[in-house]
Amino acid sequence: MRWLVTGAAGFVGSHLVDRLLDDGHEVTGYDNLSTGRLEFLEGAGRNDRFRLIRGDILDPAPLRDALHGCDGVAHLAAHADVRFGTQHTRADLDQNVIGTWSVLEAMRDAGVRRIALASTGAIYGDTAVFPTPERAPFPVQTSLYAASKLAAEAYVQAYCEGFGFQAVIVRLVSVLGERYSHGHVFDFVKQLREHPERLDVLGDGRQRKSYVDVGDCVRAMALALREARAPVEIFNVGSDETMTVDESIGFITARLGVEPRIAHGGGERGWPGDNPLILLDCSRIRALGWQPRSSIRDAVERTVAFLVENHWILERP
Amino acid sequence: MRWLVTGAAGFVGSHLVDRLLDDGHEVTGYDNLSTGRLEFLEGAGRNDRFRLIRGDILDPAPLRDALHGCDGVAHLAAHADVRFGTQHTRADLDQNVIGTWSVLEAMRDAGVRRIALASTGAIYGDTAVFPTPERAPFPVQTSLYAASKLAAEAYVQAYCEGFGFQAVIVRLVSVLGERYSHGHVFDFVKQLREHPERLDVLGDGRQRKSYVDVGDCVRAMALALREARAPVEIFNVGSDETMTVDESIGFITARLGVEPRIAHGGGERGWPGDNPLILLDCSRIRALGWQPRSSIRDAVERTVAFLVENHWILERP
Repeated sequence: MRWLVTGAAGFVGSHLVDRLLDDGHEVTGYDNLSTGRLEFLEGAGRNDRFRLIRGDILDPAPLRDALHGCDGVAHLAAHADVRFGTQHTRADLDQNVIGTWSVLEAMRDAGVRRIALASTGAIYGDTAVFPTPERAPFPVQTSLYAASKLAAEAYVQAYCEGFGFQAVIVRLVSVLGERYSHGHVFDFVKQLREHPERLDVLGDGRQRKSYVDVGDCVRAMALALREARAPVEIFNVGSDETMTVDESIGFITARLGVEPRIAHGGGERGWPGDNPLILLDCSRIRALGWQPRSSIRDAVERTVAFLVENHWILERP
Repeated sequence: MRWLVTGAAGFVGSHLVDRLLDDGHEVTGYDNLSTGRLEFLEGAGRNDRFRLIRGDILDPAPLRDALHGCDGVAHLAAHADVRFGTQHTRADLDQNVIGTWSVLEAMRDAGVRRIALASTGAIYGDTAVFPTPERAPFPVQTSLYAASKLAAEAYVQAYCEGFGFQAVIVRLVSVLGERYSHGHVFDFVKQLREHPERLDVLGDGRQRKSYVDVGDCVRAMALALREARAPVEIFNVGSDETMTVDESIGFITARLGVEPRIAHGGGERGWPGDNPLILLDCSRIRALGWQPRSSIRDAVERTVAFLVENHWILERP
């Protein structure tokens, strides 16, 4: 099959490109390079089953060209930082909601009907059910980012019913690993390189979340794409472990060999709309034979090692 | 209080204007008159606590002016016809998703933080739980219209968490009564005036849905606005009765005194994404003391009487 991967030069996107190439597929990468990095596609670029098109998902013309000859789309392009939704409310709307609609319309024009959407466990919002299954009680949203991802999911689902699309939606916990380029481990490593004696932490440090290694993550996505049969298939993807922010600080400082004074901002939420606990029931994807190979601690340590070896990424605007 | 009512010249909007005026509030109506009708505001126009501003929810300037001096917003402006989502996929996105975001942003600018949103029971999509409660298992969406309304809900909820808004969301079944101006009763009456001997029906006639009279509907909304305390309160609003399409045909033809030949299009869904059954668990709003006063049959008959007395409305484009 030939897959179009939007957000191909991003953290998860570039790993999915590698995974699909390893599985023997042809891959067209699509990225506007606003946050994606060509460096992440160096390996893929050496594979003659890969091509890259630079374009924005909101721009129909290059998107139509990119879709030419594709059998399906893995839609990973997104405004992906949950913490800053309230600072620029239009970014999630444009890139995640209108962007997804734009991809769906281009697919309809091109007659391409298979789509995989990277969504988020944050859409369980105010849930009180842990671990949270895909059919948890209808939640109330707590962040602009999750609201935009829920809207994207809803549009994908409606296209399945209205236009005969087939969709795989993966709801991801926070992803760690090589090429990680935003999030709390990034921020902590960056701070500790600038001032190893002090670490400023949002919230009380006790927010507890599940994480998944990016290699495990894209293995789950590729498996779901291969096995899905129903018009809409939804899979939570995460590990059964959790880690608190304070625990991650322990792993990071040990790996860096520093002993900073920790200054907690206080409050159980790191930012408005933060979920103090994210832990997903992943039995659906596990029933297909998937399980994470990497522990959260391993994933944190490899993330730190990657950031130290590629410190250019810490200096980007 | 002074309420801004968007979609004030629409079917439900104009009734809510009347209700809020009856309850002693001041009301600013806001409508672009794309589908709204000034005729619906004739009564309100005679009340000096009412003013009307013509403008579009996507246009920030008149919206900002309209919000001046308001304490809350009842956001009813929407692209409201669930059946035609697949024919113009951008309409729901623009008017329901981006439009709601635009209203929320204007409120944020103006420092107005109370909002009521008219949503729909269609967002329960593929649910298997009937009657369906507000916290039903997380559903899969089946129509573009419902997807857009779910997105609107999610944005409203995220603004409550992110910006301290307080929201009342009402999920309505199909609404009937005076000023009804789209939907199956409208289509059937229009057809039967043009050719009383034949009636073309989408689907197999057995889709079974709950309905609510518009007077009962706006009474529920006004009650929810008065009683809601939590940051986000969600209420299903419908009757505990259902009516099949074929039953409604019986009520309509009896009222019109015609005996058409019925031509069913076939299939359990009237259109792509139609829900064959909509029946909501309304115990939350009932616990506040609300119950419908009108039966579905009464509501259908008054709808038909209204359309016959106001047949100009059947001839609009």
